[in-house]
Amino acid sequence: MVTVAVDAMGSDRGPEVTVAGAAEISRSSGAPNLVLVGDEAILRRLLLVNEHDRERVRIAHAPTAVSQDDKPRDALTDKPGCSILRAAQLVKRGEADVLVSAGNTGAVTLACARTFDRLPGVGRCALGAVYPTERRRGEKDDPFSLILDAGLTLEVDADDLVAFAVMGSAYAARISRNPRPRVALLSIGAEDGKGTSSVVEANRRLRALDRSLIEFIGNIEGMDIPKGTADVVVTAGFTGNIVLKMLEGVAETVMRLGRYAGDSSLRYKAGLGLLMPAVKKLRKATDWEQYGGAPILGFDHLCIKAHGRSTARAMGNAIKVATRAARTELVPSIREALAQSASSSSTQSGE
Amino acid sequence: MVTVAVDAMGSDRGPEVTVAGAAEISRSSGAPNLVLVGDEAILRRLLLVNEHDRERVRIAHAPTAVSQDDKPRDALTDKPGCSILRAAQLVKRGEADVLVSAGNTGAVTLACARTFDRLPGVGRCALGAVYPTERRRGEKDDPFSLILDAGLTLEVDADDLVAFAVMGSAYAARISRNPRPRVALLSIGAEDGKGTSSVVEANRRLRALDRSLIEFIGNIEGMDIPKGTADVVVTAGFTGNIVLKMLEGVAETVMRLGRYAGDSSLRYKAGLGLLMPAVKKLRKATDWEQYGGAPILGFDHLCIKAHGRSTARAMGNAIKVATRAARTELVPSIREALAQSASSSSTQSGE
Repeated sequence: MVTVAVDAMGSDRGPEVTVAGAAEISRSSGAPNLVLVGDEAILRRLLLVNEHDRERVRIAHAPTAVSQDDKPRDALTDKPGCSILRAAQLVKRGEADVLVSAGNTGAVTLACARTFDRLPGVGRCALGAVYPTERRRGEKDDPFSLILDAGLTLEVDADDLVAFAVMGSAYAARISRNPRPRVALLSIGAEDGKGTSSVVEANRRLRALDRSLIEFIGNIEGMDIPKGTADVVVTAGFTGNIVLKMLEGVAETVMRLGRYAGDSSLRYKAGLGLLMPAVKKLRKATDWEQYGGAPILGFDHLCIKAHGRSTARAMGNAIKVATRAARTELVPSIREALAQSASSSSTQSGE
Repeated sequence: MVTVAVDAMGSDRGPEVTVAGAAEISRSSGAPNLVLVGDEAILRRLLLVNEHDRERVRIAHAPTAVSQDDKPRDALTDKPGCSILRAAQLVKRGEADVLVSAGNTGAVTLACARTFDRLPGVGRCALGAVYPTERRRGEKDDPFSLILDAGLTLEVDADDLVAFAVMGSAYAARISRNPRPRVALLSIGAEDGKGTSSVVEANRRLRALDRSLIEFIGNIEGMDIPKGTADVVVTAGFTGNIVLKMLEGVAETVMRLGRYAGDSSLRYKAGLGLLMPAVKKLRKATDWEQYGGAPILGFDHLCIKAHGRSTARAMGNAIKVATRAARTELVPSIREALAQSASSSSTQSGE
């Protein structure tokens, strides 16, 4: 049975949403055990008003919490009993299998870094984000592709990009139930020689890996992301964050540029009017921070980072993703894939 | 009187377009002198059928030419008499003031690097590109902002970013006739501390410059480009190229995502149908490679790189931009601005 440690105090919307989401999940079939970490008095009161499965939900007290405005480094030092650190420690000690938090991203990643170890072969960790595409993939016709890094590790070298590719592939295979996810590097052209020196070198190394380990399809460009050309898109956090925010705002951009194009005809206005509801829907659909949760990959334990403004439903989704990751042995499989890719590389290079 | 050296053989569409564009310009008021560099027999024949001002157009023979498919380094070594090298040498010797080419981008920049010197304070050069925005600026209500680097220098340090900012500001002031262009760094958030270490350091140094030298407005995000928040957007060539290509394809992206959003209602289809002509117009308007020409900044002579598929009109525009740059003493003003910013920095840091 999987146990999920939930940082119940991290959300911008307060513990109410987190407890509501967790309570709801506890009553579903195949629910995991849940440890809600936070102020015991508050959580106990909230559980009174949220119907839940008592067998599956328990509380672990944490006297303090980090807020979204706190400076991560100072907050973790000043508040050693904060909910995110306590929740991470439960996972570290094996009392839970996986961590979920909607807290301050900096504090969550720092709490992981202080509590967990990095997997062998991982120099820097990656934050994944999902983005909707035209294409469906895997058993569940999943429209999402995974982009990593989304803004955690801004600068990367070739080692980081290769590790992100291997980790992202393992994640997509388990979470999107897509046995052979197509992995690509984001670059300025499809040709293998295009890109920064890190991208060119990572491309060379990924090409050299055995195809049973990873389905590497080469480089793609930014516009290929919404097409769904790749299931896993690998890039530095600086580029990834810029690109994701641009994709999130495409609809507005078209309207702005429409104004530039000067087509202020009745026809254009009528067209925009008809499209407006779709554009709004789209705005919501492309808010990459809304989905279930973004994995922090590279540690010896998994953390699913939910968005700070997550609804109860989104928190529930993050818990589901975390549960599935734990059940499918995601972290051991990442560890194994990293080891295999390292040995495949050294065989290839004749060492 | 300004003299423009035109590489007449570089265009994908052959010397016909370049000669037609140059011939047309020669007959306009305020035309520069033009030296068409290329195969003399071909150019002479083309001038017979393109009405031009004989006082203003002359031919400089170049026995060979680099094609778009040639490998730049090999081509320049194997063809020392190629039109792009000969044209650059004319500028170097002072027989022309500025260079225009629609040739292979790699070969054009390499020919500049082999022939010209970098300005003091410039470690790496930048290729500028213009992008249409919602906002108008300068005397001519120019809707374009300048983005540099667009893909020439993929990786940069803080020194490069500061030099790009200073050079881009001088270019926009003269070409867009916008006396105080607002300059920004592209990053993952507006706060000064956001971004890679190079971006954070460049931000700090640009903030420290005297505001009479540069109107630095801080960091912007990708979506701020079409808004026109900044007149000059500074970034590494890797990011700049990815972002420009994404902006070029926004309209298609919205349609793809529309399909994802699942709104295949009659209403949505009708809206798209009405918008389609505007979307096509937009596609053309956002093809950043179409505009007059992109400056290569950082050398002691200016080169305006026109798109390989430029029409006669686009070649004419590139010649006009080059002429304006030469008349307004762009390169000396960039040299001066770089020197002032270096001395302003050292004063600020108390050296």
